[in-house]
Formats: sequence, C-alpha cells, structure tokens
Amino acid sequence: MTALRKAARRGGRNARHELRAAPLADDKRPIRPGMTGGRYAPLTESDMDRINEAILESLETIGFADAIPSCVELVTKAGGSVNDQGRLLFPRGLVKDMLAVASRRFPIYAQDPKHDLEPWDKKVYFGTAGAAVHMIDIETGEYTDPGIADLYDIARLVDQLDNIHFFQRSVVARDMETSRDLDINTLYVCVSGTTKHVGTSWVKPEYVEESLEMLHMIAGSEEAWRARPFVSMSNCFVVPPFKFAEDACLCLEAAVKGGIPILLLAAGQAGATSPAALAGAVMQEMAEVIAGIVYINLLSPGHPAIAGPWPFVSDLRTGAMSGGSGEQALLSSACAQMCAYYDLPGGVCAGMSDSKMVDAQSGAEKGYTEALVGNSGANMIYESAGMHASLLGCCKESFVIDNDTIGGVLRAVRGIEVTDETLSVEALRQVCEQGPGHFLGHDQTMDLMETEYVYPLVGDRTSPKEWVEQGSPSYNGRAREKTTEILTTHFPAHIDPALDESIRERFDIKLDRGYMLAGS
Amino acid sequence: MTALRKAARRGGRNARHELRAAPLADDKRPIRPGMTGGRYAPLTESDMDRINEAILESLETIGFADAIPSCVELVTKAGGSVNDQGRLLFPRGLVKDMLAVASRRFPIYAQDPKHDLEPWDKKVYFGTAGAAVHMIDIETGEYTDPGIADLYDIARLVDQLDNIHFFQRSVVARDMETSRDLDINTLYVCVSGTTKHVGTSWVKPEYVEESLEMLHMIAGSEEAWRARPFVSMSNCFVVPPFKFAEDACLCLEAAVKGGIPILLLAAGQAGATSPAALAGAVMQEMAEVIAGIVYINLLSPGHPAIAGPWPFVSDLRTGAMSGGSGEQALLSSACAQMCAYYDLPGGVCAGMSDSKMVDAQSGAEKGYTEALVGNSGANMIYESAGMHASLLGCCKESFVIDNDTIGGVLRAVRGIEVTDETLSVEALRQVCEQGPGHFLGHDQTMDLMETEYVYPLVGDRTSPKEWVEQGSPSYNGRAREKTTEILTTHFPAHIDPALDESIRERFDIKLDRGYMLAGS
Repeated sequence: MTALRKAARRGGRNARHELRAAPLADDKRPIRPGMTGGRYAPLTESDMDRINEAILESLETIGFADAIPSCVELVTKAGGSVNDQGRLLFPRGLVKDMLAVASRRFPIYAQDPKHDLEPWDKKVYFGTAGAAVHMIDIETGEYTDPGIADLYDIARLVDQLDNIHFFQRSVVARDMETSRDLDINTLYVCVSGTTKHVGTSWVKPEYVEESLEMLHMIAGSEEAWRARPFVSMSNCFVVPPFKFAEDACLCLEAAVKGGIPILLLAAGQAGATSPAALAGAVMQEMAEVIAGIVYINLLSPGHPAIAGPWPFVSDLRTGAMSGGSGEQALLSSACAQMCAYYDLPGGVCAGMSDSKMVDAQSGAEKGYTEALVGNSGANMIYESAGMHASLLGCCKESFVIDNDTIGGVLRAVRGIEVTDETLSVEALRQVCEQGPGHFLGHDQTMDLMETEYVYPLVGDRTSPKEWVEQGSPSYNGRAREKTTEILTTHFPAHIDPALDESIRERFDIKLDRGYMLAGS
Repeated sequence: MTALRKAARRGGRNARHELRAAPLADDKRPIRPGMTGGRYAPLTESDMDRINEAILESLETIGFADAIPSCVELVTKAGGSVNDQGRLLFPRGLVKDMLAVASRRFPIYAQDPKHDLEPWDKKVYFGTAGAAVHMIDIETGEYTDPGIADLYDIARLVDQLDNIHFFQRSVVARDMETSRDLDINTLYVCVSGTTKHVGTSWVKPEYVEESLEMLHMIAGSEEAWRARPFVSMSNCFVVPPFKFAEDACLCLEAAVKGGIPILLLAAGQAGATSPAALAGAVMQEMAEVIAGIVYINLLSPGHPAIAGPWPFVSDLRTGAMSGGSGEQALLSSACAQMCAYYDLPGGVCAGMSDSKMVDAQSGAEKGYTEALVGNSGANMIYESAGMHASLLGCCKESFVIDNDTIGGVLRAVRGIEVTDETLSVEALRQVCEQGPGHFLGHDQTMDLMETEYVYPLVGDRTSPKEWVEQGSPSYNGRAREKTTEILTTHFPAHIDPALDESIRERFDIKLDRGYMLAGS
C-alpha cells in the first residue's frame, strides 16, 4: 500500500489535503486537451444531408463573385465556369473531388510538441482569436488602445493557462505604424510569448513571405519549419455572401507556397451578410468554406486547411453584430457538426460576449455558448477566452476567468464513465451496511477526488462565512491578482537570446527586449 | 400585403423598429415554455441500461433504513421485506410494477391556466427553488436575513419574468418565529405573488392539512383544488444514502391524502452522501427517487409525482457543496436522461453558482449548467434563477439576470429548423444576383427578426462607443433598475380582496396587506 493510500485510509480532511499536495500525472488529470465531444447534436443526419445538398446547389448555380485570375484559371481548368454575371461556378463533381482530396489527419503543431493538437474525430480544443481594437481595464471599465506589449502579455497568459490549448492573436496592436510592422511584430510577439500553436493573419502576401523567414529562423531551417509548421494563417478569403476577397486570396496563395496551415474563415453575419434563417446561415458559411477547400486543394492537393465556418449573429434591431446568444451557440454547434459530416478539421467560435465588461452577462454568454459548442465536438473553438463587446474589446483578466469556465465545460465534455466500478453498488452497500453512512473517507472518494473533479483556478467556493471573513473578495479582483502574478513571473525563454538577437537584426521588432525579460 | 410587410419592403432600420413595436402572438414567439429538448445526451442507451440494473440491484439487496411503520407495512404487504439490519428491501418485481403504475401525463397546474405545464416527452420548463438563508445585496455584497416580504417580492418578480415558468420558494423567511408560521406564510406569499405553479415544502403533516384549507379557499372548493392542484410539495423523503426521513415521510402521506402533487427529492452530495464516482451518484439518486415512486404508488396508485434526482457535488478539498461545475452539469443532465428512460416526469437542478456575488463566475456557472441540462430534455429545471453561494444565498436582481440567461438557453433548446425555405438558397441567389449584396432589408430578414431571434431584457448589446456615451452602465445596475421597476409597479391582484380577508381571518398571516398593495 502506498503512502497516499495509507493517508486515504486514515480518512478525513487532512488525508484529502495530503493527496492534493501530490502532483498528478498528465494522463490522470480530469480534463485534457483533445477529449472527444459530440454528445450535443442540434442537427439530425437528414438535416445535414439537406444542408449538404443546398451547399452543392449554391456553389454550382450561384457561385462566387470577384475571383482573382489565378483562382479563375484553377477552377475553370478543373471543370468550373464563369457565368454571364462574372460569377465563378463550382460544379458539384469538382466540389466532391476536392473534398475527397482534402487533408484530414494533420496535427496542428506547436513549438513545444506537448502542445500539438490532433483536430479530428470530434476531439475538442479551446483557444483564442480576435482582432479587438480595445483593451478593457477590468476595474475601471476603461477602454484603451491595445499595444504590441499587450499582445505579448496575452500570449504569456495563454502560455500558462492549461485550458486554453492554442493561441490565435486576440488584439490589433494599434501602436504599430504600418501594416508591415503590424504583421511582423504580431507574429513575433505571439511566437515569443507562448510555445502553444499560434494563429495570426497577414495584410499582404509580401509580409507573409517575410514572416516565413522568421519562422525558418525559429524552426532552425525551412525544412524544420515545413515538417512542423507551428503557426497557422487565419484567412478571410471570402466577403460573405459568396464573394472573394482579393488581398486575402493573395495571402492564401502565399501561405500555401510557404507551407503555412490555413484557417479558412467565412464570417457572415446572419440577417446582414448571410440569411437570417439559421439553417441558411449555416449553409452559406459552410458553402463558402468549402469553396475555399476547393481553391486550396486545386493550388496544392492536401494542403493543411481548417474549415472555419463562423456564422455570426446580427442584432436585427440595429444590424450590429451580437456574439453571445442562443442563436450563436446553435450556429457554431451546427457548423461543428457539418465539419464532422465532411470529416474536415473544424474550427468554429464561441465565447464572444456582447457585454462591455467582465460581469454576469459575459459569464453567462461565454458559459452557455462554450458548453454547447464544446459538446458539439468542434475540433478547434476560437474566440473562447478574453473577448468582450462582440469581439471589439479584450480583457487580460478574462483569459484567467475564461480558463476556469472552459475547465468546467471540458469536464462536461469528458462525460460520465459507466462501469461496474463507477456504478458503485458495492461502495454503497459498504457505506450503508458497515457504516459510517457517508462516503467522505471512502477509498473510492480518495481515489477519484483528483481524477474525476476539476478545481477552479480563481473561482470561489468558500462558504458565505469564510468569504466575509476574507473581506468579501471579488471574482474580478482575484482574477486580477492571478493575472498580475503570471505577468510578473512568467517570462518565456523558449527562444534563445542569440536567436532573438538575430531576429531583431533582420526584422524591425518594436517590443523592447527589456520588457520581454522583466515585463517593464 | 399587410402594413407590416409594407414597412418591411421599405427596408432598413426604421422598418425594423416599426416591426418591433407590434406585439407578437404567443405562438410566433421565438421561445416558449415547454419546448422539446434532448439534443444533448451524456449517457448512451447501454449506459442507461446498466444504471437501471444497478438501481434494481441496490433497491433489492441494500434497501432503505429508517422506514416508518406505515411504509414498512405497505411495502412488505406488496412483497418487500425487512432484512436483519432493519433495512427495507424493494424486490425488483415490485419496483417494476410500481413504475408501471406511476402517473406520467399529469399537467402541473397553475392558478392561471396559461401557465400550466406539461412535463413529459422531454418538454423543458425552467423554474426556481431553494431554501436560501441569506439575501444578497447586489451592490454592496452584503448578506442579510431573508424575510417573508422578500419571498413575496421574489414571487412577484417571477410572475413577471417570461422565461421562469414555475415558482418554487427560494428562501427561508427567517422572520417567522415558528415552523407553523413559516409553512403557512410561505405558502400564502407564494400563491399571492404569482399565478404560476408554486412549489413549497412543509415541516410537519399538520401544517400540510392546515395549508390545504387555504388552498381550498383559493381554489373555491376542495373539488376545484383537487381538479387543478396548483401547488406541489417539495419533499426530501430520503436522507442519502438510502435512509428514510421520518417527518418528510409523514408530510408525504399528508400530501397524498390532500391531492398535492409531490416532487420526490433525493439530494445526495457526490463524495459525501453519495458515491464520488459520477455514475454511482446518478445511480444512487435515481434509486432513491424510485423508492419514493414505489412508496407513493403503494399509498395511492397514480398519485402525481415528479421524479427529483438532485445529485449535488462536493468540493472534496473541503467536503462543502459545490453547485456550479461541469460535474454538476453532467449529473443533472444524466438524471434527466434517466427520468426520460423511465418515462417519469423529471425535475432536476441547474444554475446553482458557488459565487457569493452576481459576477462573471455566477454567470458562467449558471450559463454552462443550464445550457447542458436544458438541452438534455429535463422536464423541470429547479434552482435555475436567483441562487448563489451554493444555494445558501439568493439575490433578487439575479432573477432578472438569469431570466436573460435562460432565454439564451431556451433559444438553443428550440434548435434549428431545416426546410427548403430556411435553407435560403433562393434568398441567397436573389441577394447575390440582383443585389443589394446583403440581407438586411430582405423580406426573409423582416419575417424572422421577431420569430427566430431572442432579445435580452437587460443584457447589453450596444457598441463600446454608445456604451461609453450612456455612462458605461453596469449589468448589475441595469438589473437593479429592472428589478425596482417590477417591484414598484407589479402588485398581483389575482386573489380577490374579500378572499384575502377571509384567509387573513382564518390564518395568522404576517405580511402586511399594505405591503402587498403598494410594496411598502
């Protein structure tokens, strides 16, 4: 019998505390990245068949406006055509062929392999995203401009938060003067701030090419980069409804050339840039993503691409985007199901609150959208931490808070294991027949307290009495403390100082080396 | 063409505002009480078969301690036995027979028939419950003692909040001096404060009998009461694990005699009074509820009973109850599935936050537990509004806030309708080929903005700019305003003044008539 089990036998609170002190092996943890979801399914199989049929019909008969010449050439050579309105039509045979060719089992790599993701078979990962133009002060509610140091801080936070599995850039650093500075520095601070997978976007294809140089330097060589591309491109190749975005298409082609995995984003807004009917919004965004899949696989068969149907919601009273609603939970969950229908790695969004602040509204909107989307089996859930104001605002403390929310959701994703052992008939018999009439000191309780139960990082579970004795601490205050603790102690050093110096020689890096070493 | 459609044709923001001004017929509303859930299913069919088998085995071989003589007599006459430990055993044949006899299609009545519930076939209703011993001030965070006027206020709030479908008493009025005063006055203020279905509990059977007199007076006669019993008894007949509670059993027998529907509550705490393994916790609480079903149906075959498996969670570091967690969402959802497995009306719980305050923690915990439990197809979801501090605290403003959260969840429960019309291929074709390239003024958008989309009552969807211009209003502040508005304007008058006077003559009613007429 181990010391721990002996402690358990002694029972009671001390034994439980003793157990808690022991570190838990990774495979014993109650929640892990990449658990299998799919127990929530808003669409039936026949719903999905009908959506598929409508997608094929729309791509074949409505087609896309504004295709760039290279795209037109690829598609028409493969059997597509341009109609008299100048719209590029995708025949269903071509769509099916390209869906068959599309890559499906590629890992999403991270600088540290322990953070690699396997986004298939309804495995679920939560991560960030966004292009917020405001930082939010959790205490004062003040909205300010995000700078490049803020983005670096967010990367460092994500690096330390277990339930955020990948990092796509969350804010637009508004202290960058040119779009080139923005693209280069955004990439630099993201990959410097975390060893988790990084996603970002680029304004122009030439910045993509420049950025690849940096990625080769960090990887050690172009070959090493291509073997484990640890950065993906978030690409809005489409302006919904059904119109290509020229610059984004050029960036997409540069990404394919450079071996960058692509998140194919179609972000229509139901009632504004996609149909108000939820089924139509799902259909359109999936159709647009599939047009992207066709395009990419004609460019380079099997190039890694994540299907990114992001149907947003409009508040139809104003036309403004709304990110936190039951409609949004349905749209993203249905899209996750459609990605699984095509067996494509799916990246959808959840956790986008409309609240301007960190409050009960943001908590609820994040909680219910993430619960449903997580359990729908979405492979990658973007926007799931830090975001407020319908994606316009970002709050550092919210990453810490949302990490707890995602922890609860992940526990639900893990589900309930039903075995003879867990059904506990014998444990119940023992407790009832031999005493003590409760399970607190029972061996089973001791064994399961770490492996079956998730404990929040900052969430409060004290009694009202203890809470008052502690001075009635606020949740936001506790989150601020934890955020400050991470930001004053965690200075990632995975990029060697010599390498960092080389990067700084080659590129115009705006973030002080001093800030990166000491946070000030 | 109607005026509204003409307005729609004109398109744009004014037309949308014009539409919003028109009242919406009940059957057109995007969310309604009693929509069908069940798209989230943590347990498989074979999981449920195994749980059922463990339930039957436990009831047959472990049985219950502390059965009262009348219960022992009923069960042993029907084939049960008492073992040498004094435990009452329920043979599986008896259990199956009583499950067959149990009533399944009884409405849960309300004083106003428009609020009647039909808790079967995975129809979902949200409501309240609780026995909180603290009221929480949303602004100061102060914890105070609830009084009978607080309970009346909560009933009035629930009466006005569309997404809270029934009202079980939320707080213990600590200004009542005797348990008799408590039982009688609790019932009185609940049924006076709302025309929705009321649930409450009683300390002693004689107070049940006295209360029935009041219910007969309100109904008009005993016959009228028995035809539409609009109050149910929440009854904790079991002290988990597997032990009867004497007083509660006596109250249960009085309820059966008086025609009061019973919520059979089994509220074990996983890791303390039920197994730490989640499957075992579900098994035990369902087994306990089924013992109650056997008991009730032996007393009076077909007496209306709601199965109430409420497995709570222990924070195993302290042994204290935790209400807001992924584990809790799983336990309640699995129990909802088990109730549907037996085709019993099921009442489970969700929305119980551990946070002492109204904040992002309470929002998230309520949001994710309610989203999953709502979509699991639970018939009646108790504790879903107002509760904090692991059920020890209650906040009036939280009812308003949680009403919005439940609204979002209900929208998800409604699901996505997939038809040729909603798939919107023709709408997309029109917008793409004939302009204007967006759906904002489209007929479909106008038609669906009220019927497909839920708008929050107090939730904020302004832009950061508008929000700052409005003085950065807080969510809690808006909720307080709405709460004050309801409590200063809504004085329910469904009980005739003359009848109220008769009730006051017969019973020792502690709440001032003046308060009921004017809130002060």
